Amino acid sequence: MLNKKYLLPQEAVQLLLKYIPFKCLPSEIIPIEEAFGRVTYEEILSPEDLPGFIRSTVDGFAVKASDTFGAKESSPAYLNVKGDIPMGEIPQFSLSKGEAASVATGGMLPEGADAVVMIEHVNTVSDDLIEVLKSVSPGENVIFKDEDAKKGEVIVKSGIRLKPQDVGALAGLGICQVKVTKKPVVSIILTGDEIIPHTEKVSLGKVRDVNSFTLAGLCLQYGAVPLKMGIVKDEYDKIKNIVHEAYGRSDIVLITGGTSAGVKDLTSKVIDELGSPGVLFHGASIKPGKPIIGGICQGKPVFGLPGHPVAVYVCFEIFVKPLIEHMLGLRERQYKTLIKAKMSRSIPSQAGREDFIRVSLEERNGQIWATPLLSKSGLIMSLVRADGVVRIPSDLLGIQEGDEVLVEIIK
Amino acid sequence: MLNKKYLLPQEAVQLLLKYIPFKCLPSEIIPIEEAFGRVTYEEILSPEDLPGFIRSTVDGFAVKASDTFGAKESSPAYLNVKGDIPMGEIPQFSLSKGEAASVATGGMLPEGADAVVMIEHVNTVSDDLIEVLKSVSPGENVIFKDEDAKKGEVIVKSGIRLKPQDVGALAGLGICQVKVTKKPVVSIILTGDEIIPHTEKVSLGKVRDVNSFTLAGLCLQYGAVPLKMGIVKDEYDKIKNIVHEAYGRSDIVLITGGTSAGVKDLTSKVIDELGSPGVLFHGASIKPGKPIIGGICQGKPVFGLPGHPVAVYVCFEIFVKPLIEHMLGLRERQYKTLIKAKMSRSIPSQAGREDFIRVSLEERNGQIWATPLLSKSGLIMSLVRADGVVRIPSDLLGIQEGDEVLVEIIK
Repeated sequence: MLNKKYLLPQEAVQLLLKYIPFKCLPSEIIPIEEAFGRVTYEEILSPEDLPGFIRSTVDGFAVKASDTFGAKESSPAYLNVKGDIPMGEIPQFSLSKGEAASVATGGMLPEGADAVVMIEHVNTVSDDLIEVLKSVSPGENVIFKDEDAKKGEVIVKSGIRLKPQDVGALAGLGICQVKVTKKPVVSIILTGDEIIPHTEKVSLGKVRDVNSFTLAGLCLQYGAVPLKMGIVKDEYDKIKNIVHEAYGRSDIVLITGGTSAGVKDLTSKVIDELGSPGVLFHGASIKPGKPIIGGICQGKPVFGLPGHPVAVYVCFEIFVKPLIEHMLGLRERQYKTLIKAKMSRSIPSQAGREDFIRVSLEERNGQIWATPLLSKSGLIMSLVRADGVVRIPSDLLGIQEGDEVLVEIIK
Repeated sequence: MLNKKYLLPQEAVQLLLKYIPFKCLPSEIIPIEEAFGRVTYEEILSPEDLPGFIRSTVDGFAVKASDTFGAKESSPAYLNVKGDIPMGEIPQFSLSKGEAASVATGGMLPEGADAVVMIEHVNTVSDDLIEVLKSVSPGENVIFKDEDAKKGEVIVKSGIRLKPQDVGALAGLGICQVKVTKKPVVSIILTGDEIIPHTEKVSLGKVRDVNSFTLAGLCLQYGAVPLKMGIVKDEYDKIKNIVHEAYGRSDIVLITGGTSAGVKDLTSKVIDELGSPGVLFHGASIKPGKPIIGGICQGKPVFGLPGHPVAVYVCFEIFVKPLIEHMLGLRERQYKTLIKAKMSRSIPSQAGREDFIRVSLEERNGQIWATPLLSKSGLIMSLVRADGVVRIPSDLLGIQEGDEVLVEIIK
């Protein structure tokens, strides 16, 4: 028992992913007003050229660029003003050599014009004559027809979490609805005779539910819908019934608590009976979070998470988040917010195990120091006080005081 | 006009902040179920000790640590098992010297016990006798009463965006409601005779609304409530009426478009008339975004944003986001997601101006390269395709090919 060989966290995740097809969740079509943060189900093609016409990007005068060549303050080019282009309208004339037309930002250029001279570089001589003080090259200060997007071009790839500007681009192209992957529903079951709802007064021996709140927040953070199933006693039938109900109503089932010896076996047994292959691993080389149970039941992930608040958090980040992203079909490269810091204290670690050390950060004389919040994984406050997490890989025996580490910031 | 001196972006922001009290928004009390991501209005104190009793953090046997001193596999300590502690209940006995009691994770220790030996380090000899194979020190594998949080201690500071684990901690302490800062309402007004709703077919000379979607997403991203006021023509009375209405209904007013010479003046005039001090700056040393208008009207920020989609994005990030966070009373240090990369192409910049260059990232032979998306700020796709932004400070004349840069990842 002491020397039992557990999977490393990444091995355990890979094992789970083997059973779950990428982008296994169904799609849904939603208005773009609700699309921010959702994951595209398929690539989105431009239905038209954007813009559909040649536009000015500045306030000034539309010109033939060749008419301005060599113009400078000491020897301006003189152009006749043919007219004024009203905003949002099609110019009713075209430009010939030596002619210009006043145009505002966003205005359409008349036929014959291929550049715009900024108003700052023009002197008005009379109503119909200007001096151009600076030459422009063809294409300067204009956006050509289809320069932003060409009809049929891929605007947004599949598996992208839509950002504000992506939604803006869709609107600009007249795309009013978008096909996204449905959010996975993650059910959260708490087990434990000692757990009471947060609304109740505690008596000795009892503790209030912490984990359903942490887990619900994590679900929202990563684009899933939390489904709280409540608290059940450590009894086989009760756990089995609620897990069956949760399984039917959700895409991922999280059973937390049940870390005591007898109950761990109950959770395993319930997962095994729920569908094949059942439990894939029972325990992983990770601290905190070692007693985690990971299983797949007929294509749905079912986890038995340890009940310690910090272990629940770490297990969600390490095991559940990658599954959510895999099921959503997320293809984007993700960048973590990492800060270089020096460790203010030595931390031992066991070989063959990945350790996740909560740290607080402090700047002293321009150097950022990471101080480990050395505490038991049952203490939620060590996580509340943490600015970030330092990962000690399985092949290191610890970190020495003064060593440089990369701290992953908790957002 | 050509040599007009503009404020640097950070100077412009500081100027605006001088007129707006920190945490000027009112508070509201919400249930913790809705608290994830909200900003605390005041510090939250622990109403009680957490836990309220000494608990085990493992499955095993509660002991007096001194009874185990010197125990090892070759010479175990023998202890009498006094009983079994049911989960969630108060032990009905206490431990004397030489006694142990079986306890599960989370269970309460009996009086007299000060440590727990893990089940893995125990051999059961008979129903009432165990061999302890490893010594424990006092406090090992237990959480003492109030070790997580002491009554009256600050649990979460004021001005913190509540994370999943923070909400978990509040639940654990029986805190069911929390006082948070109200989300600022940001009204979004689009001006421009050429702008049409995204649902309409474009005709030559017209463009669809991009900016209200980008801005609404940015508001949501930073914890504000977007209030879309629609599209108005470039006419003084119409702009004035809608700005007045928006001012009454929101905490920050954004007027976008109106970048053409005449309309810029309209926007300025409307802001000046809305309340004092009115327009504080008209233009800033930033690219894109130079024509930005920033004002304060009787304590509320009112912006005239340039109409170019990329400029709108940059102006929101640089000018509006800090104001939102200031009004929300956010005190947390914020860490940006920065990636070191080499610039794949030289980029010139003008002294005295801050440039924000959109870049795409690519990894080649273990080196990340940033390629500038050199395009006009009117092109929304240059933002959609960007992985991040490189800031060229005002004292640099550009970046050379191969220079190392810090890329701020767009999330």
